[in-house]
Amino acid sequence: MVTDQLARSYLKNYIFLVEPTLQDFLSAKLKEALKISQSSKENLGISEQMIKTYQSFIAGGKKLRGSLIFLGFDLVHKRTNKDILFASIAIEILHAALLMHDDIMDQDPLRRGMPTIHKRYEEIHRKNFNKGSTSHYGLSMGIDLGDDGIFMAIEVLATANLPEKNKNQALTTFARLLQQTAFGQAMDVTYELLPTATEEDVLRIHTYKTAFYTIAGPLAIGATLAGAPENVLSAINDYGKAVGVAFQLRDDELGLYSSEDKLGKPIGSDVREGKNTVLRIKAIELSKGRDRNFLLQAYGNEELSAYDVKRVQSITKDSGALAYSQQLSRRLVEKGKRAIPEITSNKKYQDLLTSFAELMITRDS
Amino acid sequence: MVTDQLARSYLKNYIFLVEPTLQDFLSAKLKEALKISQSSKENLGISEQMIKTYQSFIAGGKKLRGSLIFLGFDLVHKRTNKDILFASIAIEILHAALLMHDDIMDQDPLRRGMPTIHKRYEEIHRKNFNKGSTSHYGLSMGIDLGDDGIFMAIEVLATANLPEKNKNQALTTFARLLQQTAFGQAMDVTYELLPTATEEDVLRIHTYKTAFYTIAGPLAIGATLAGAPENVLSAINDYGKAVGVAFQLRDDELGLYSSEDKLGKPIGSDVREGKNTVLRIKAIELSKGRDRNFLLQAYGNEELSAYDVKRVQSITKDSGALAYSQQLSRRLVEKGKRAIPEITSNKKYQDLLTSFAELMITRDS
Repeated sequence: MVTDQLARSYLKNYIFLVEPTLQDFLSAKLKEALKISQSSKENLGISEQMIKTYQSFIAGGKKLRGSLIFLGFDLVHKRTNKDILFASIAIEILHAALLMHDDIMDQDPLRRGMPTIHKRYEEIHRKNFNKGSTSHYGLSMGIDLGDDGIFMAIEVLATANLPEKNKNQALTTFARLLQQTAFGQAMDVTYELLPTATEEDVLRIHTYKTAFYTIAGPLAIGATLAGAPENVLSAINDYGKAVGVAFQLRDDELGLYSSEDKLGKPIGSDVREGKNTVLRIKAIELSKGRDRNFLLQAYGNEELSAYDVKRVQSITKDSGALAYSQQLSRRLVEKGKRAIPEITSNKKYQDLLTSFAELMITRDS
Repeated sequence: MVTDQLARSYLKNYIFLVEPTLQDFLSAKLKEALKISQSSKENLGISEQMIKTYQSFIAGGKKLRGSLIFLGFDLVHKRTNKDILFASIAIEILHAALLMHDDIMDQDPLRRGMPTIHKRYEEIHRKNFNKGSTSHYGLSMGIDLGDDGIFMAIEVLATANLPEKNKNQALTTFARLLQQTAFGQAMDVTYELLPTATEEDVLRIHTYKTAFYTIAGPLAIGATLAGAPENVLSAINDYGKAVGVAFQLRDDELGLYSSEDKLGKPIGSDVREGKNTVLRIKAIELSKGRDRNFLLQAYGNEELSAYDVKRVQSITKDSGALAYSQQLSRRLVEKGKRAIPEITSNKKYQDLLTSFAELMITRDS
């Protein structure tokens, strides 16, 4: 029986390998940024500050997406090398960039246990300037830093020492995938405005916003860089779409039942933001009377106390909504696993993919 | 004597050629978006709305950047074709995307004579939803649509029917150039917070934010797609950096002296926003007493009346600041022209580049 252990080791090894590569790339970017201030006498050090912000922000990530680019290449090419390691940092830089935009849209003050980027720049404004709006400066810099990171990510993919044709195909996959993500993000932002969303709506948002972006896309990019044939890419898509939704369901569960320490932000942020989750929809559907009314007013209430979050936790559990979400995840993981034989016939990689599928619902951060 | 006429004709011809290509690409995107709502029952039509927003927004652009990709290819390859025409739309889509982000940062309500994208989505919120913040929804959708456009632009470059190696090099140039633009944008946003910026600061911002992005970059991308050698790319950079700053100086002049009709937004927006321009810095430097005090309080005053904008116009002109800016532009145009012989020895293309340099300071929109 394959557990999440193989995936955990693979991820740990990847993190060990990739961190110097990431830091080398950003150190080179920092040198370029320093040249701007030195050669043009830009004394505020704006570009250095931007790169340093990336350096500190990127250190805290899980690196799941990068490891899946690495694995996608690995399972087609049957051998990794420093070139795919380098290419894989593209998605980690991109992810940092998109989180900067996402945190603005979600108005989150914390990420990875530290202030979000727009909040950090609000602080820079507060300390250094007494003109203009603090919040608008934070917002503007958050948008701009995100854009900068998107372009760094593209530079990585375009310059990696890999076959030209594969790179262009991978960039195409990357670009198309991220358009799906943008649609998913727009759905997420918009469906929050409806009085109620359905489970179908939520699963669609999870597919577009998370599953392609977090699982199917990175694996496909890695496999494409290794020259994978069409049937393999199609099976990767089936696998990633299913287990990627399970990933997001787990994310929503952790958002309600993990600890602030592990989550890097307060428990119940999703409730306060009024985020559409299966937990929410199912708990409202399955509960009655005062419990149900309580949930209806709790979601979207920015002032919700920690005590009230505990009540959301217990109603969600007691109503059976938590179990429902977990059973749904399990079914999706099993569905994803059925696509594995089409991806690879190699037992080692089959086990790795099975283990990653398991990790989606066992991970605790 | 070469005037701006050749460039105007070239641009006009390019617009005629490119518009169907642009609309074909966006129509194909619209079909993809429709598939999402049909296959997944996403009934709000969110992705269609996003693509339709691009269709209407992109129709209004000057298409200068796209025409320069076309010209950059043309002057190296000595022949254009539908493949470079397609590739050139990347920068037009990207430009639309970055304007969406820029308009949020600048808090502009109008662009190209129509509401800016975040304002349009505020309107959608107002009409359709009675939950959540109108301005925050506009902002979130503006960020997300911008991201979507960036990824559409990358798809265009990666899928164009051009040599694989050239495409990766062009994508590298594109990605690096846009990191410079992000630095320039951050400088722009930050220097507005200082009590005063210097002329050196302003010209640096113009170089990073505008000259690379508007002139040097597009020409270099086109030339790279045609396989230009290093010395040509270096000369293109010299040309574009010089005439690109002249482009921005002209932009600032038009922002103060054009008409709302031609500009697509109110005259004096730059003054109200407190934008750092050579006109501002020079007029403050060259004026005295009440005029100087008036300028000091006018810049950054969001409530400035149309009458007061007229006073800014006359002080700026009478102080000699306008003439100073125009002379500086002229010198930059001449400097840019000196790089032309290194770009091409072909008289036809030399004349075209000369004419484009002239256009930078004669254009009235």
